[in-house]
Amino acid sequence: MSPARRLHGVKSSPVRDLLALTLRPEVISFAGGLPALELFDVDGWRAAFAKAAEDRRNLQYATTEGDPLLRELIAERMTRRGLPTTGADLLVTTGSQQALTLVATTLLEPGDVVAVEEPTYLAALQCFQLAGARVVPVASDEHGVVPSALAEVLERDRPTLVYLVPTFANPSGRTLPAARRQEIAALADRHDVWVVEDDPYGELRYRGERVPQLASYGEKVLHLGSLSKIGAPGLRLGWLRAPRSLMPAAVIAKQAADLHTSTIDQAAAAVYLTSADLDAHVAGLCAAYLERRDTMIAALPDTVPAGTEWTDPDGGMFVWLRLPGEVDTTDVLKRALTHNVAFVPGAPFFATTPDTATMRLSFTTNPPEEITEGMRRLAAVFTSPSADGER
Amino acid sequence: MSPARRLHGVKSSPVRDLLALTLRPEVISFAGGLPALELFDVDGWRAAFAKAAEDRRNLQYATTEGDPLLRELIAERMTRRGLPTTGADLLVTTGSQQALTLVATTLLEPGDVVAVEEPTYLAALQCFQLAGARVVPVASDEHGVVPSALAEVLERDRPTLVYLVPTFANPSGRTLPAARRQEIAALADRHDVWVVEDDPYGELRYRGERVPQLASYGEKVLHLGSLSKIGAPGLRLGWLRAPRSLMPAAVIAKQAADLHTSTIDQAAAAVYLTSADLDAHVAGLCAAYLERRDTMIAALPDTVPAGTEWTDPDGGMFVWLRLPGEVDTTDVLKRALTHNVAFVPGAPFFATTPDTATMRLSFTTNPPEEITEGMRRLAAVFTSPSADGER
Repeated sequence: MSPARRLHGVKSSPVRDLLALTLRPEVISFAGGLPALELFDVDGWRAAFAKAAEDRRNLQYATTEGDPLLRELIAERMTRRGLPTTGADLLVTTGSQQALTLVATTLLEPGDVVAVEEPTYLAALQCFQLAGARVVPVASDEHGVVPSALAEVLERDRPTLVYLVPTFANPSGRTLPAARRQEIAALADRHDVWVVEDDPYGELRYRGERVPQLASYGEKVLHLGSLSKIGAPGLRLGWLRAPRSLMPAAVIAKQAADLHTSTIDQAAAAVYLTSADLDAHVAGLCAAYLERRDTMIAALPDTVPAGTEWTDPDGGMFVWLRLPGEVDTTDVLKRALTHNVAFVPGAPFFATTPDTATMRLSFTTNPPEEITEGMRRLAAVFTSPSADGER
Repeated sequence: MSPARRLHGVKSSPVRDLLALTLRPEVISFAGGLPALELFDVDGWRAAFAKAAEDRRNLQYATTEGDPLLRELIAERMTRRGLPTTGADLLVTTGSQQALTLVATTLLEPGDVVAVEEPTYLAALQCFQLAGARVVPVASDEHGVVPSALAEVLERDRPTLVYLVPTFANPSGRTLPAARRQEIAALADRHDVWVVEDDPYGELRYRGERVPQLASYGEKVLHLGSLSKIGAPGLRLGWLRAPRSLMPAAVIAKQAADLHTSTIDQAAAAVYLTSADLDAHVAGLCAAYLERRDTMIAALPDTVPAGTEWTDPDGGMFVWLRLPGEVDTTDVLKRALTHNVAFVPGAPFFATTPDTATMRLSFTTNPPEEITEGMRRLAAVFTSPSADGER
């Protein structure tokens, strides 16, 4: 018997495999999708944990569904943001990554088809592969997935699930317009197929008008949310918003996964949402990230080769690039690391045929002056002789 | 398409379904496998969280394998307890329940066979059912699984995995003797089959000599450990000890599951293991739990009907009972709840044909005087007229 048979063909995340290299202090990394360390509300979280740690019940086992107060507080926040939600609609998860895995466990049988926009979040691809699903890409343009292309895939491949990051997508930074959301929700209803709206970045909008959540357009949309990008990822706190029909099955999957999410982290988050001003904090994040975004975008023309295309995101964390010609950005990354700058090659974000000339830059991790210096180093990578095949 | 197809036949844990009822403050519950709330080292954990919350890096994403310091500290502790371990042998998990699910994800394909002792931990059964495995019980006696019976199952059913709780088992309280451990490890080597040693209770020994861990007898044994029973379950901190050959696959499964376990909880645990005296705390727990165990066992003859059999555990949390005659302990539980006392019916702990006359009592949750009162109520359940079918 071979160990790990299910994992044949499932690749480790390059983001994580390269983390060791990008963690060298001399490297300016645009690789990981990391929020800015220096912008965490450390005082707020320290106070929240101090309060939570006073109550010994926060050291005990807790209910699988999650802390009732935290669920109410998240539901209120979602309702205020335009998606009417009650605590009973929510399952607290150990990060929204777990919510995705629970959806896969709940809905997918080996051999089932999952439709995804392309490129898409690579850990989602891993998750579907682990579930034994066949992943089918849907054609996308600069506004995200194309509804008519999705309609074709729904007819032809009969997917069980459609996975989308409709707002400030990872890795592309694209946002699906409201009209497309409406069309996609209608397609989901017509074909009786579940759509996952993975929405970790939705609150990080730097310009333009808010687009209603995909889940606000239909009952077949499962919504995944997270405190990771607006609060702190280290707590691993996310949630699944699902119809009542699906919740009992998701709760069973959650029991098997880890019984429940950390009691004390949930309690601290409930304290934080009650006592801190998260809206003001997010506004501060958005102001800081806008400057970082603008710094990176402004530097791009002097950084990358002529003919390079890039996205111009209204929010989120990522710029997505396509270099001209026959390039493999994995080779570029190797050279970049010798220049002490890092990014993520685009290939792993593709479900099927990778476009090796693509790459992802994260603009949230580093302050503007670091971004400027990192882009200078990246420019040197593209203009150095090694770019012609020295290595 | 029906939602939740994979979950057909997977039942919600009765422990959790009954939690709502047993949580009524007037109920003395012997149901949940809860550590004693009043014995948590609240001061130690409060100090640990205060220290951990000072460092903003503990709010950030972290590596999938787990906090390097925490892994070293756990490895040292395991080595001191007789199982030589390094940090690199360990994957930190979100409770040992997650370790079990990761093992299932890593090793099981739908249709694979998992061999288990019977009765066994019900959330393990759920986990294997979710993975699409066929669960085959192995005959057990008062010392746990019978090696010759396991050998037969290995020959006949060719399981991919054998799941055991060798020390103070849940639900039976039984402990597998050293000679059987040696035999089972040898069988695992001979048949090239993985054995899971789920060991959340091993440190909670109240009498008798320590038995070496099953994993100390062979390379095919995966060991699951946890801070839940000796520290605090609310942090959801467990670990998988696995050979290097299996670790990369387990790490990928962990990435897909939740990226990593709570950074701040891991950091707090590392602080705690460094600054608190966990050995002294565990010694205190053992002294308190021994008294609770003795109180419950001493009360049993005057509580349960003549002809009832029960286990006499050397450690852990549970006493396992078998009532005489044709009884369904689910009916007994319903009556017990009207007397404000609770336990877990035994049926869900069986993989195949349940013995409905069995039940599990947890003796760790309540102080001795509560146990005495709870046993008095339970005695009333068995002697009340309703026992003859009034309800």
